[in-house]
Amino acid sequence: MRYELYYWPGIQGRGEFIRLALEEAGADYVDVARTSGRGRGMDALMRFLEGRGVPRPPFAPPFLKAGRQVIGQTANILLFLGPRLGLVPRAEADRLWAHQLQLTIIDLLDEVHETHHPIASSLYYEDQKPAAKRRAADFIRNRMSNYLAHFEEVLARNRPGRHMVGARLSYVDLSIFQIVEGLRYAFPRVMARRESRYARVIALHDRVAARPRIAAYLASERRIPFNESGIFRHYPELDR
Amino acid sequence: MRYELYYWPGIQGRGEFIRLALEEAGADYVDVARTSGRGRGMDALMRFLEGRGVPRPPFAPPFLKAGRQVIGQTANILLFLGPRLGLVPRAEADRLWAHQLQLTIIDLLDEVHETHHPIASSLYYEDQKPAAKRRAADFIRNRMSNYLAHFEEVLARNRPGRHMVGARLSYVDLSIFQIVEGLRYAFPRVMARRESRYARVIALHDRVAARPRIAAYLASERRIPFNESGIFRHYPELDR
Repeated sequence: MRYELYYWPGIQGRGEFIRLALEEAGADYVDVARTSGRGRGMDALMRFLEGRGVPRPPFAPPFLKAGRQVIGQTANILLFLGPRLGLVPRAEADRLWAHQLQLTIIDLLDEVHETHHPIASSLYYEDQKPAAKRRAADFIRNRMSNYLAHFEEVLARNRPGRHMVGARLSYVDLSIFQIVEGLRYAFPRVMARRESRYARVIALHDRVAARPRIAAYLASERRIPFNESGIFRHYPELDR
Repeated sequence: MRYELYYWPGIQGRGEFIRLALEEAGADYVDVARTSGRGRGMDALMRFLEGRGVPRPPFAPPFLKAGRQVIGQTANILLFLGPRLGLVPRAEADRLWAHQLQLTIIDLLDEVHETHHPIASSLYYEDQKPAAKRRAADFIRNRMSNYLAHFEEVLARNRPGRHMVGARLSYVDLSIFQIVEGLRYAFPRVMARRESRYARVIALHDRVAARPRIAAYLASERRIPFNESGIFRHYPELDR
């Protein structure tokens, strides 16, 4: 099965959680909007979003085409891919637990986006800067620690504490890696002060980064660098 | 199976999407924090959130206890309950599609919350009113219509347009009902002007409201009235 991933070509964004899973599994996939040729490129993505021919239209990227099936919503795509890529345990209870954690990771991601766009996605950051400063301060003071403490606790309760779910690597571990990477990019000063509180989370991040396929991916041109069009953005004035 | 729903006792909030599914199915359930007695009430909810004994701790309410399993995240709970309550088709592709729509409904719900709390959940509405006015204006101008137009389109493509998924009632239809109820409560003037654009969505809302078990539930004391502690809040200054 060749998977087709449809996502904005210039950012890691939500698509990155899917890319990491596909890369770790060594899956056959095309990053459609970043590829040229027939049925490829941004046109293909837009045709899909605007097209009338899709019986079950996605609301927004990312979406994944697998044969004739089109699946939207980041966490839903991982729910679908997890068992197919061997990145989640078999039992239903474990899969629901993995999905629950993934949804909480996406909630955190949404809140990161709000730190620079608290008023409107349709406005520039510069047009909502005072509100962004207040929002980011609250995020750093209250929300970020709630989430990271939760993930740390999940690891602590899942002895020996090396994985988020069960005894093997899952897509949730890959997503935790991405969250740490993103928070370090967006809030380097805050993270430098705080990381020691989340030793298990950081250790998991490091183990994921060292996996051969992930390391190769990160060193490749397929990994888009963080930038100020993405969800994790580095604005020094918000990093306090 | 007796289900135990854990959610804040004074609001509809996210818990309402679960309550509607349990009520429509005539399921045996306890709304734990709204019930008194041993193992009931707010104490039981808090013990669960703070307790050390839970191997897979939920991040926040709502969560559902089904036997020994504890399931968190609203859309995940519906993913679990859907097949057990007969509120979703059997095929995996249909279930993923239903879940995708539910996740988009929750995204809309999150954005509704942001209209009155764009700066911080930890602050009062009154302490973030200017930002809330800007956020609500953008929500009404851009976001609300995007979501409602999407749901209208989903109905239009699923001929004969009476259900969000397949040919029978699903939990997604119940959630669409709740979204319309909530938007009417929070933004009555805006909705009065806009509803005619979303004829299929409104018709679906009306059909759900007329279902005997839903009608009985809505008329009962189990249905908590909308209020200004919930997610849908009526602040006239935001309804423009």
